[in-house]
Amino acid sequence: MRTSAENAQLALLLEVTATPKPGNVDRAREYPDLRFEHFMAGAVGASQGLRMAAADDPVGASFERAIEGMADQRGGNTQFGALLLLMPLVRAAGNENGSSSGNGALTPERAAAVVEATTVDDAAAFYRAFEHVDVAVDDPPADMEALDVRRGADAVPAIEERGVTLYELFERSADRDGVAREWVSGFPRTFAAADRIAALDGPVSERAARVFLELLADEPDTHVVTKHGEPTAQEVSEDAQAALDGDLDPETLADDLVERSVNPGTTADLVAAGLFVALERGLDV
Amino acid sequence: MRTSAENAQLALLLEVTATPKPGNVDRAREYPDLRFEHFMAGAVGASQGLRMAAADDPVGASFERAIEGMADQRGGNTQFGALLLLMPLVRAAGNENGSSSGNGALTPERAAAVVEATTVDDAAAFYRAFEHVDVAVDDPPADMEALDVRRGADAVPAIEERGVTLYELFERSADRDGVAREWVSGFPRTFAAADRIAALDGPVSERAARVFLELLADEPDTHVVTKHGEPTAQEVSEDAQAALDGDLDPETLADDLVERSVNPGTTADLVAAGLFVALERGLDV
Repeated sequence: MRTSAENAQLALLLEVTATPKPGNVDRAREYPDLRFEHFMAGAVGASQGLRMAAADDPVGASFERAIEGMADQRGGNTQFGALLLLMPLVRAAGNENGSSSGNGALTPERAAAVVEATTVDDAAAFYRAFEHVDVAVDDPPADMEALDVRRGADAVPAIEERGVTLYELFERSADRDGVAREWVSGFPRTFAAADRIAALDGPVSERAARVFLELLADEPDTHVVTKHGEPTAQEVSEDAQAALDGDLDPETLADDLVERSVNPGTTADLVAAGLFVALERGLDV
Repeated sequence: MRTSAENAQLALLLEVTATPKPGNVDRAREYPDLRFEHFMAGAVGASQGLRMAAADDPVGASFERAIEGMADQRGGNTQFGALLLLMPLVRAAGNENGSSSGNGALTPERAAAVVEATTVDDAAAFYRAFEHVDVAVDDPPADMEALDVRRGADAVPAIEERGVTLYELFERSADRDGVAREWVSGFPRTFAAADRIAALDGPVSERAARVFLELLADEPDTHVVTKHGEPTAQEVSEDAQAALDGDLDPETLADDLVERSVNPGTTADLVAAGLFVALERGLDV
């Protein structure tokens, strides 16, 4: 009986609850200035934006509203990437009154149709979202400097002049950003994560922690690449595989990565999106 | 910028996050069949009922809707008592469009006016809420058997025949139920808890854990009295005082009470209500 917007909020909460999720804030680990409670407040603050997406409001405006609400706590960026994944999924799952999840509407095809239909206005709203919170991003390519997301609302005239849609924007960054890659490829890792979460047994948060390791072992985390470089990201993925193979205690890996402030945030975003899809498809908590 | 309904939801989430809260589910402890994730789902499920209360819908109907949503998870009763405290407080704080908290509307006087204005319909809705979830309650006095809350909707005709309002119902159980006592006495412990949370320093969840111990040391928990008897409740309060005095490690106390399934749930309800009042009055997370 939860709505799609409520399932999305619950997915955010379950994601941060899952432990150990090496390198990320979870139920057992946090950073002094980015704490578990900031993720609680972030998930609550995002709720109106999530309801907008479920009610078929534009993806960009819904996202900007969600980020504005998410940022109303002292920890800074808690769920930017997760909300970016969730917005088109919630819109694909929802219906006009935002009610009744589990109607089977949420498919990769429908999600792809939602992102492909995004507009220049959606792109402008995405840029405005950066006004509310600091997000770690890479330098843009030379010909994209005018579109650097770190310029926030100042980049909107350039976006409008060039007529770039949000989908087109993400096509340009898909090679270096795992969230953008999901957007432009039919959300393959999101739906695969949902299938794994549904197939596993036990408490949902334990399944989510397991799937986090699987996704991390499977592909280097692009957030880690951005902040610490490709070799570190590669090494973290190998460590995740070792944890899955029983050759490394995931709790030890978690302590080590938190100590080094290496946080595979994009992989956590994928887990949140996967939890949402699983909840929409009937996963019981 | 959070609405009153959102602050109430955040209060539920921060309450269960706070650790150690000896005997209760918290970020570090849970029971096999009542887990942290059930409280996440409970807080999400309650959101529509909380929005109803903020929009000035009747307290009883809002509460019933909140409990119906809260119960949509496998853990059973997660936040029944907390929501019972929150409903009149949210209605006292809210306004018709459910927006803009922190307008100074939330006072003990206004909360008292809300509960005193409850009707027979509110009492009937309260009974119907018991259809959705099992709640631990004491046997009623002999002349109240027809009004035993465990009868759920079956008791509604007797409620209507006798013309008992929800406020009058709680007057009759105030001597043995700490939530009812708050309702009929102007929420003194709730507002005192809010003041303490605001006055302390540090992460909000750590302040909440401290205030939990203070409330527990101050008065025996009525939920513990109901389930384990007065002597056990008295002993738990003495242990809480010892923890505050530094004579007993609160983590040890927490392990011991969880082991014995002694959970001071009413005290946790008061912490949630106190967190809500503090958030409404401008507490930053």
